[in-house]
Order: sequence, then C-alpha cells, then structure tokens
Amino acid sequence: MSSPKVDHVQQSDVAVGIVAINHAAPPTIETAEQLAPRIGKSPDWIVENAGVACRHTALPGEDPAELVADVAKPLLDQCGSPDLILNAGAMHRQMVPDTSVFIARSLGVEEVPAFTINATCLSFVVALNTAKSLIRSGDYQCVLICTAEFPSRGRNFNQPESAALLGDGVAAAIVEAGASTGHIESFRMKTWPEAADYAEVRGGGVMRRPWDETTTHEDHVFDMKGDRLLRFALPRIRPFVRQFLQDNDLSVSDLAAIVPHQASLSAMQIVSKLGFPKDKIVDVLAKYGNCVAASIPIALSEGAQQGKFQRGDRILLLGTAAGMSIGAAILRW
Amino acid sequence: MSSPKVDHVQQSDVAVGIVAINHAAPPTIETAEQLAPRIGKSPDWIVENAGVACRHTALPGEDPAELVADVAKPLLDQCGSPDLILNAGAMHRQMVPDTSVFIARSLGVEEVPAFTINATCLSFVVALNTAKSLIRSGDYQCVLICTAEFPSRGRNFNQPESAALLGDGVAAAIVEAGASTGHIESFRMKTWPEAADYAEVRGGGVMRRPWDETTTHEDHVFDMKGDRLLRFALPRIRPFVRQFLQDNDLSVSDLAAIVPHQASLSAMQIVSKLGFPKDKIVDVLAKYGNCVAASIPIALSEGAQQGKFQRGDRILLLGTAAGMSIGAAILRW
Repeated sequence: MSSPKVDHVQQSDVAVGIVAINHAAPPTIETAEQLAPRIGKSPDWIVENAGVACRHTALPGEDPAELVADVAKPLLDQCGSPDLILNAGAMHRQMVPDTSVFIARSLGVEEVPAFTINATCLSFVVALNTAKSLIRSGDYQCVLICTAEFPSRGRNFNQPESAALLGDGVAAAIVEAGASTGHIESFRMKTWPEAADYAEVRGGGVMRRPWDETTTHEDHVFDMKGDRLLRFALPRIRPFVRQFLQDNDLSVSDLAAIVPHQASLSAMQIVSKLGFPKDKIVDVLAKYGNCVAASIPIALSEGAQQGKFQRGDRILLLGTAAGMSIGAAILRW
Repeated sequence: MSSPKVDHVQQSDVAVGIVAINHAAPPTIETAEQLAPRIGKSPDWIVENAGVACRHTALPGEDPAELVADVAKPLLDQCGSPDLILNAGAMHRQMVPDTSVFIARSLGVEEVPAFTINATCLSFVVALNTAKSLIRSGDYQCVLICTAEFPSRGRNFNQPESAALLGDGVAAAIVEAGASTGHIESFRMKTWPEAADYAEVRGGGVMRRPWDETTTHEDHVFDMKGDRLLRFALPRIRPFVRQFLQDNDLSVSDLAAIVPHQASLSAMQIVSKLGFPKDKIVDVLAKYGNCVAASIPIALSEGAQQGKFQRGDRILLLGTAAGMSIGAAILRW
C-alpha cells in the first residue's frame, strides 16, 4: 500500500464525506425477559424504564475488532483501500496496543497507519470531523473509521438502570476526499469535566488495578449516576443545540432527520423535547440499547437503510458522552 | 470560554507550531539498585541491558492527569486558554471516561472540548499532526496536547527486560495557529499489525476482564517480546527513515537533532546506526527509562532546555510503537 505523499496538496476546499457506512451486532440477542432475573427487575420494568426490548451481547471469545473488520470489508471492496484506519471508541479491546491495530490485523492490511480516537460516546462524531481535517490537510485521501463496542462485558448487574441499557454493536464508515455524498458540514463539542464521575468505569487503567487492595469488582464495571447525569445535561443541551443550529443558519425544519446517541429512554425524550418531531428522530434504542460510541453510527447506518433521510438531506448527529460532553455535527447526506 | 466558530476560516497556509512545551515526572526515583532485587538481576545488568540508571515511579494514589495538568498550567499562563484539550497516550487513567476529561478537570476549565488520541508510544507525534490539521481546518486556534504515562504500574517483574525499561513521566505542549516557532512540517506513520502481540498489555479492556476464569495477573501487566520486536522493526526502520527524509528533500546533515522514542538501549543504538551522530541524538533513557508516549515529548522538552537544538533548526521526531508502528515528524524548531 502506498504511503501518504509528503508533497501533499492542501485541499482546503475539497468536499469530504461519508461514501459508505455499515453496521452489525453480535448474533446473540438478549431479551428483556432474559435479562430481568439478572438485575432483579421485571421485563416490563426494563422496557418501560430503559426502553430496551432487546440488545445484542457478545459471547465469550467474540472479538470486537474482528466483528467490525467483517463490517468494514464490504466497504473496502466498494471503495478501495484506506490510507488511514481510525478506531473510534471507548471500550478498548485491551490496554496496549490500541484497538485500531487489531482491526488492521483482521482486515489483513499492512503499512496503513492506524490509531484510536476516544471521546467516549462521541468518538465516532469526533473521528468524522478529525478525518475531514486530516483529509483536507492532504495527509490522507480515504479514512476508514471503525467503532466496535462490547459494553455488555462491563455491565454492573447491581445497577439495573445501566445494566438494562447497554448493548453491543459495531459500525464502519469510509470518509473520502472528493466525496459527492455524506458531507461533514459542521461540528462542535463541549466538555464539562465537573460531571466526570457521573458515568464511569473506574478500572481498566493505571488508577485502580485489579490487584490493588482497595479495588473492587464494582470498579471494573459501569457506574452510572443516571439521574445526576440527566439533571446536569438537561439545561446544557438545549442552548448547545440552539446555538449550533443558529451558527449554521439552520432551523429544526431544515433538518430531515436527527441521529442521536441512543443514551437512554430519557435522553431520547429530551431530544424530542428540543423541537424535533418524533418521526425525524432515528430511534434504534429498543433494538440495540446504548452501544456507547457505536450508537450514533449504527443509527446513522440504519436510518440510511430505512430511508429516514435521502441524498442531499441535511441531518444532525447529536450526542452526550461520559465526561460530560455534548457534541453535534451537520451532515449533508 | 468561547466555542469554536462555525463560520471558521480555512487556514490552509497558516503556520502551526509548538509555542511552549514542558515536562515532569513523579518525584519518587527508583534506582537500578532498588529495582534489582525485584527482578532478580544485578544493578549492573539493568544498566548494561536496559540502559536505565533510574526511573521515576508514581506512588499509590498519584494521578497522571493531575501531574500533567500541573505541567500544563504554566504553559496556559503564558499562552492563554486552549480551545481543545488533546490527551495523547496509551496508559489511560481509567476505562471510562477518557483521560482528557480528568486533565480538563484538574486544569479547572469547562466547555473546552476534550478527547484522547492513542497510538501507543507514538501518541504525542500523532496528536501533533492531528492538532495541526484541526487548526488548519479552522476548528481550533490553540490546542493543548497532554501526555501522561505511568507504565510503572503495569510492570511485569517476571520479565526483567521490560520491567527494567519502564518509567513514569508526563509532558504538555501548546500548538497554536500563527506560531512563529516549532512548526510541524511533515509527518508519516506506518503500522504492521502482524507484530500486534510483540508488546502488549492484554488486560484492561473487554477481552480479558479481571474476573474471567482464564485471565491471569500476567494479562494485566506488560508482555514484551523484545527480541522479536527488534528483529521485526530493524529491517523496516531504515527504509522508512530514508524514504521520509528523501521525500522531504532532507539528508541527515540537515537535521540539528533527532528526538527518538526512548524505547530501549537497543532501540537507541539502532537510531545511531541510521547515520545520526551520537551528539545529535537526544537521549534521556538513562534518567527516565521508557515512558511510553511521554518519552518523545519529554526528550523534546529536555532537548530544548539543554540547547541540543536552536530556534530555526530542523529536528526529527522518530519512534516505534506497539502495534507495531513506525512514525516520524519533521519540526522546524
């Protein structure tokens, strides 16, 4: 595979867009009925509170990097080889090396640079905007973005709220220079770190190692303070979205669809309260649950397949992320 | 803090560079004498084989995000507030949220977007190039890149080779639009995933959870196949560097200094065999050990302080990373 040219041409005006997108989930489905006894709640409680009728859960040994490579392969057959592989996600495969390398290995490519962008649930949207910049700088022509999240492996069954939400899924997209579709028109993100501990997995890093005396099992699984997170996010989302649309000279009626992070039933209700009609909101929460960074690209891929928006339509990607961050992007599909 | 403008101006020709850089390490120093009994080797063996006379090791409770924020603060006093915080590193603080959020919290900023770039030991160099692209796209004006690595917390004392190498350290740099110094002129990276398991920490992610029956303590600490890694990297580094310099119309004599990843004594010897005179190589291995992604910015910061290169000089950042990747950048200091 050829290396990026050094004498690359700055392409500040080149159109950059998503030319292909695909998604999948591990084949095993866990219904509300199956999950209910593990979290001491009824199936009805799960559906009414989390809004998740079923989620996909990877079996032991299933590898997120392999699953997302399977989803990316048909895109590569269609678009050719990427000159950059960007893994975009939070639930890494292992600590070292980063997940992008394992995706490259599963794809069977070599000499293609690979790295990871992690903005928790906003990773895919951040990676889209970053890919656009890197392409416009002339560094790359064709970027494969992969998001592979198996959060079911970090569920805390003593916290029914979050355990009822999380599900596994993967998505891959090709972002190219000179694309005639899927243009990334605008992006914005803000982070409020005072809410850093409202949604976390405290283990998996250098602060709470498995063998440290004070580390507990609870440190290795999700800890979500859902109510606090919602109360914190609520007054910040509305002004963020209003300002973002205003700065882009857009109003709600200019948008054919909203593709939100499928954070929770309450989060989906907040989106509809922002003034977006329900039929414009791509909602795959009941089917997949909250797939962390994979939720937005899965909803985008499903929304495109279901004809929720058409070529040329403007759509809004919108999400919150642990941190807490709010992020959004305008795509011209 | 103001949000990035949507009607941002593409600045494809704007000079982007490092305007300030700083580094530090946890105060506790561990000498070869102190480490020797823990790995069943003599102090002389450590110095002769690893080339590391001492390394800094964080005490329990010390937080990499806090230490790097302390290093970043004087830079912010000098340069003003960043409009993006990029954490660049491999040894994350915890699994969710990503380390950038905790750095933002320690800095006391809010509404500044924050995310993480992970290209293992090349994270800082990849983040430099990414910051340049994002600035040229007009998304941001001033990016704070932070690298905070405490790999001593993942040492495998049954593997004397890697345990003798690793040390803790942090670095921070400000990358700005319109900079008159530290210009990022060129960048290249290649990844060969067939070497993905030559340097790894298999735990800390979704594949080998602490409570899985087959997970062992060894999965949570570094596993380095040093000889295989070296044999794999050796035939690839020389043509990579030769081609990169050639594509930039540079020869070794045009470079005032080489700032390599401080991977190991053998890796440093390889760099000198590439044709770089020993006095041009910034070598801080003996003092810090291999600080993963922090090694290159620590060496860059120390090299600048020590006058190893001057304003206007061209310098080469060069490193390998777990994956395995090779990466390089040309800076005009």
